[in-house]
Amino acid sequence: MEIQKPYLLFLGDAHDILAAKVAIGIKQWHPEYCVGQYRMEECHADCDLPDMDIAAAKAAGAKTLVIGVANRGGIISDKWISILTEALEAGMDLASGLHNRLTDVPELKALADKLGRKLFDVRHPTQTFPVANGKKREGKRLLPVGTDCSCGKMYTALAIEKEMLERGMKATFRATGQTGILISGAGVSIDAVVSDFVAGAVEVLAPANDADHWDVIEGQGSLFHPSFAGVTTGIIHGAQADALVLCHEPTRTTMRGVDYPIVDLGECMALNLAMAKLTNPKARFVGISVNTAKLSEKEAIALMADIEEKYGLPTVDPFRQGMSRIVDQL
Amino acid sequence: MEIQKPYLLFLGDAHDILAAKVAIGIKQWHPEYCVGQYRMEECHADCDLPDMDIAAAKAAGAKTLVIGVANRGGIISDKWISILTEALEAGMDLASGLHNRLTDVPELKALADKLGRKLFDVRHPTQTFPVANGKKREGKRLLPVGTDCSCGKMYTALAIEKEMLERGMKATFRATGQTGILISGAGVSIDAVVSDFVAGAVEVLAPANDADHWDVIEGQGSLFHPSFAGVTTGIIHGAQADALVLCHEPTRTTMRGVDYPIVDLGECMALNLAMAKLTNPKARFVGISVNTAKLSEKEAIALMADIEEKYGLPTVDPFRQGMSRIVDQL
Repeated sequence: MEIQKPYLLFLGDAHDILAAKVAIGIKQWHPEYCVGQYRMEECHADCDLPDMDIAAAKAAGAKTLVIGVANRGGIISDKWISILTEALEAGMDLASGLHNRLTDVPELKALADKLGRKLFDVRHPTQTFPVANGKKREGKRLLPVGTDCSCGKMYTALAIEKEMLERGMKATFRATGQTGILISGAGVSIDAVVSDFVAGAVEVLAPANDADHWDVIEGQGSLFHPSFAGVTTGIIHGAQADALVLCHEPTRTTMRGVDYPIVDLGECMALNLAMAKLTNPKARFVGISVNTAKLSEKEAIALMADIEEKYGLPTVDPFRQGMSRIVDQL
Repeated sequence: MEIQKPYLLFLGDAHDILAAKVAIGIKQWHPEYCVGQYRMEECHADCDLPDMDIAAAKAAGAKTLVIGVANRGGIISDKWISILTEALEAGMDLASGLHNRLTDVPELKALADKLGRKLFDVRHPTQTFPVANGKKREGKRLLPVGTDCSCGKMYTALAIEKEMLERGMKATFRATGQTGILISGAGVSIDAVVSDFVAGAVEVLAPANDADHWDVIEGQGSLFHPSFAGVTTGIIHGAQADALVLCHEPTRTTMRGVDYPIVDLGECMALNLAMAKLTNPKARFVGISVNTAKLSEKEAIALMADIEEKYGLPTVDPFRQGMSRIVDQL
């Protein structure tokens, strides 16, 4: 699955900037993929891109309209349909990371079929995957793992890919969630894959490559999250990571959505390393990535210094400091 | 999902006894569920049940025809269709654990819909499940885990349930694979569940119960199997097991389907226990179940004595000795 670029980012009727976080992410990491943004009258978000209607986006070369807004419940609003229809008629594909599917809207499905356009519902994999074989593949792989869900694994992976590319290293971000897929234009929404095939899907997602190429695979969940650790396990085994990075959000006391405490960082790394060594005995931690957005600069620096001293690994906030100290380790 | 009993076991054109192992398993564990067997002329298997045609089975009270034979590729043979049709017309439901679905055979689907009969494709869950919440549930749970796939976890669980029921304990086998589902008449084919919901499906499968009731949950895969450890992780977390039993097949040198060595038993128990303690800090191993079918009686007894001495846990072969020594531990 490869979404054609460049994109028109559809912000729809986003009631605030948070509702448009998918579009913000695409613009932040790949401004070169975006020709413009489409905002309806009621839109209260702005990605700082040229405002365009469908005709203008078409003229600017847009190949795909990407729905960059998340509604409550992940639905495709009736108010959007005429705009999405216009985009299909203008020759664009549509891509969405919403829970509800573009292909389940009869008029969009029928029109896309008629015109030969593609509808990408990136949250719902349509490929089939093999069972993992566990065989060593050529190339290097890095995987961020976390003390919790939603603690910065995608951001960390994208920041590492960026740092690697800026240094002239061969690197590819491999998305495993809907936002990452829309940002990079490819990937597999791994938590929607049937459990028997999760590790196999990651083997397909990050295939054999040049010996000096790095796949930077987006991690998901946490081995210590009682809802999602199975997904995490499958990703770890399929990734065969050479390098692991621990991601951590230091202000949380319980894990997302459940009444479970955040685990100690050392314990977390020990279990992740034990799991990773099954499919790559040389796996090692190369750094710790801390999301310090809720701390002051001073608190953040002090905390990271403490963590770095305790665990002996470069400890950075990718937003504040970038990933150069971690990439130095590779 | 609850398959109506009693069953007519359909052995079809099984070319040998191994091809009928699902039927053999049902007859072995629940002879009281089986009114008879249906064998086509070419059938070379025998479950030691009365041979019946559809009319005789109907007269004997059969409510479901269970396909107890596995073809290569898991297909539904064209030669079976007229018999399956006759069973539907006689008022029976159909149940299958094959890869291909009864509901994908147009004439069976149409006839079942018309007559109001049910088609159970137990390998393919049709329910939706919640994300696991990790909340402690009333009741006790036991889970067999393994050094590999297909090393005796289902057999161990069924033998433990049997021993518990014979002692007058409250116990329920909870199937997580197609054979277990057909044997017990209910369950969830867990490796076919979307990965995000595996732990949640096990929470639903083994719900809150009386404080002195034991759910004996069928384990799947192995934490050390590079293809399936994610499934195993989800089951362990959803099960919230109070008691774990290690299952082991001692003659294997590599794991099923992959070129990975069988792990040391102590290392295997340590990782399983660490994972289990996340959702039940009181989890403990209560025994080791060894499948010694490929060893002589003398070799088997010596090996089990060695394992028992090394790990300090009752070590038995459920087939040779039954499960009483392990159930004594609870």
